[in-house]
Amino acid sequence: MSFDALWNALEPIGRDGRTGGYRRFAWTPADLACRDWFTAAAQDRSLDVETDRNGNLWAWWGDPAAGDAVVIGSHLDSVPDGGAYDGPLGVVSAFAALDELRTGRGITPLRPVAVAAFSDEEGARFGVACGGSRLMTGALDADRARGLRDSDGTTMAEAMAAAGHDPANLGADPARLATIGCFVELHIEQGRVRLETADGLAFGLAGLGVPLGLASGIWPHGRWRIEFTGRADHAGTTRLEDRDDPMLLFAATVFAAREAAIRHDALATIGKVRVDPNGVNAIPSGVTAWLDVRGADEPRVRAVVDDLAGDLGRQRDDVRVTEESWTAPTTFDATLRARMARILGDPPIIPTGAGHDAGILAAAGIRSAMVFVRNPTGVSHSPLEHAEREDCLSGVTALAAVVADLATDEDS
Amino acid sequence: MSFDALWNALEPIGRDGRTGGYRRFAWTPADLACRDWFTAAAQDRSLDVETDRNGNLWAWWGDPAAGDAVVIGSHLDSVPDGGAYDGPLGVVSAFAALDELRTGRGITPLRPVAVAAFSDEEGARFGVACGGSRLMTGALDADRARGLRDSDGTTMAEAMAAAGHDPANLGADPARLATIGCFVELHIEQGRVRLETADGLAFGLAGLGVPLGLASGIWPHGRWRIEFTGRADHAGTTRLEDRDDPMLLFAATVFAAREAAIRHDALATIGKVRVDPNGVNAIPSGVTAWLDVRGADEPRVRAVVDDLAGDLGRQRDDVRVTEESWTAPTTFDATLRARMARILGDPPIIPTGAGHDAGILAAAGIRSAMVFVRNPTGVSHSPLEHAEREDCLSGVTALAAVVADLATDEDS
Repeated sequence: MSFDALWNALEPIGRDGRTGGYRRFAWTPADLACRDWFTAAAQDRSLDVETDRNGNLWAWWGDPAAGDAVVIGSHLDSVPDGGAYDGPLGVVSAFAALDELRTGRGITPLRPVAVAAFSDEEGARFGVACGGSRLMTGALDADRARGLRDSDGTTMAEAMAAAGHDPANLGADPARLATIGCFVELHIEQGRVRLETADGLAFGLAGLGVPLGLASGIWPHGRWRIEFTGRADHAGTTRLEDRDDPMLLFAATVFAAREAAIRHDALATIGKVRVDPNGVNAIPSGVTAWLDVRGADEPRVRAVVDDLAGDLGRQRDDVRVTEESWTAPTTFDATLRARMARILGDPPIIPTGAGHDAGILAAAGIRSAMVFVRNPTGVSHSPLEHAEREDCLSGVTALAAVVADLATDEDS
Repeated sequence: MSFDALWNALEPIGRDGRTGGYRRFAWTPADLACRDWFTAAAQDRSLDVETDRNGNLWAWWGDPAAGDAVVIGSHLDSVPDGGAYDGPLGVVSAFAALDELRTGRGITPLRPVAVAAFSDEEGARFGVACGGSRLMTGALDADRARGLRDSDGTTMAEAMAAAGHDPANLGADPARLATIGCFVELHIEQGRVRLETADGLAFGLAGLGVPLGLASGIWPHGRWRIEFTGRADHAGTTRLEDRDDPMLLFAATVFAAREAAIRHDALATIGKVRVDPNGVNAIPSGVTAWLDVRGADEPRVRAVVDDLAGDLGRQRDDVRVTEESWTAPTTFDATLRARMARILGDPPIIPTGAGHDAGILAAAGIRSAMVFVRNPTGVSHSPLEHAEREDCLSGVTALAAVVADLATDEDS
């Protein structure tokens, strides 16, 4: 089975021996090794492989110049200590689906087919998610991207140059966008979304008992940086009454965020924190927390942040709340989804709170769709992330069927 | 004034241009530059300078072999973003006091006098405070010290070797201890301790309106590591009900620690935190917090930690509390303090919650004392730490008077 060979070759790259999680950050040695894997997979299949100006990888079956290409794929990078499936499953499945089409079914496509691996989807190193696809569509400014810094102070431009990719050419790529007829991203399901069915509530594909689903859309999503300023002081000599300890208000904010999320039926998470100077015997001078909020619609996401900022504003004037990013909701192309639903026997249509390159392309006017593969626990962004092999193979077969249909339809 | 020249030469070393705080961590280039400053100060005064097996610096006026030495000094390293005074004031004042004795008063000491700068007092890099003095007295095991790691994974042995100090010779140094007749450490006051006076409550030396004080003793002090374990998951897709987010219990613990400290009239601080994996869009897999607790006596310190561990134990079984260090209370030598009080015109006697090399030497049976220089705000371990120059000069004069007395008394 070509799926297993592809999967097994990719699996060890960038895996932390202690946690079992992945650390495949953009333009690091682990990322470059993943890129080498992609190139080898393309060359093994005699596909033309190229890296575009923004660092995204493309493997072509057919001539891209013919246009109206059917593109399938996902990304190869990971969050810190991420799982094996988020991203790679879509790329591995795309190559395996091509194998099924070319050896098993023997179809003759009427238009080019490509496997794509978008660069820096997680944004784990430079803080901006979907960097490769956002640059391509123009949603991320090239100068801003070049100047983004990782936690060591290295800019994206420096990291790219060190990895052999010229950052001077970053930026919107309308010619390439014009060659894409549609984009289908297969991805592991993340979370267990609440679904109302005829039989009552169900949670995720596992709750429905089916291996695959199609995405309705992506929830709106924002990230805010909250800076709590206090005064550094000696932990052993400063009376409690004399302290201006920002850790206390930070801790209160953790609870306030949770409560606001419950109140507005949204998701709020504080998963990244920086304490300065972070010494055992020093009262902090500052605590910076990053707040991630998502929900079914924009008003409920804004309501969470407004509640929180209001609470903070009433308590202290040395707290600063900054919006770092805002991503509007995405609704995937209804016609494409309906066509895929017919081919795949009407799988469930589910929303997601996670951002994806397919969402970035959809926002840029590219017909896009997503296939989700069942995640029994819903756990993602974790070494415990898992999908059953049988479900992954169902995903490959589904992807092959979709490509066979899209690439051989004279009307498309 | 020799004080100013010494101070001005030392002041720029290891200062962060952005915050104005110091980053003089053991065996880093900043620390080595401070050591070079010490050597130059000693050589300028024709004092014999040496580095002992544990990395502590000594500048000798007279022959150490004569024994019963009067040792004055402190340390040169800093906490992250520390102030200019904590440590360096004691070393600068010691050299300046010798200058006053040798040029101004022209005394002839009957026993050797030394300026000492103890290595790695803050423990900012390897996590163990007073490393140099603890190694010397045997309170810190040499093998344990060599194996301590900094946040980059570098061991103390590797850091010492890279800085040109052979770590093979670390360990208890009874021959050197036997040469020390007494140790007097001058230090900036830290915090504003509550003092009951005939006129009512006063806070610190500033509250009393005096430039200098003597230390009664050092409070007992412990550090605990609290590990909260949860499950990493995707911030955008995991329902609140499905989360096992350790940030919530950590936040509750910040408040519980504060409340327990109030209840038992002690100090509790959480100033160092590590979040794993610390990604904006990842629910943490774990949060580790370091708890620093001090108080006037051991029962109240233990009561804070017992309350907290009890609360945590009742709530969850995936929290681990580990004692990283325990320092018993120190009472400085009453006879030496009484003698200094007579010489200095009965300054106030105040306790401190901060650890010092003088406390380590006292615990090893060396007659020790401390002189505190007024800190108007009490702020320490911060770029805002400050003492007035006039008070610093009072400290130098006091130290000179004490050494003149101790070094010329035939009975000692």
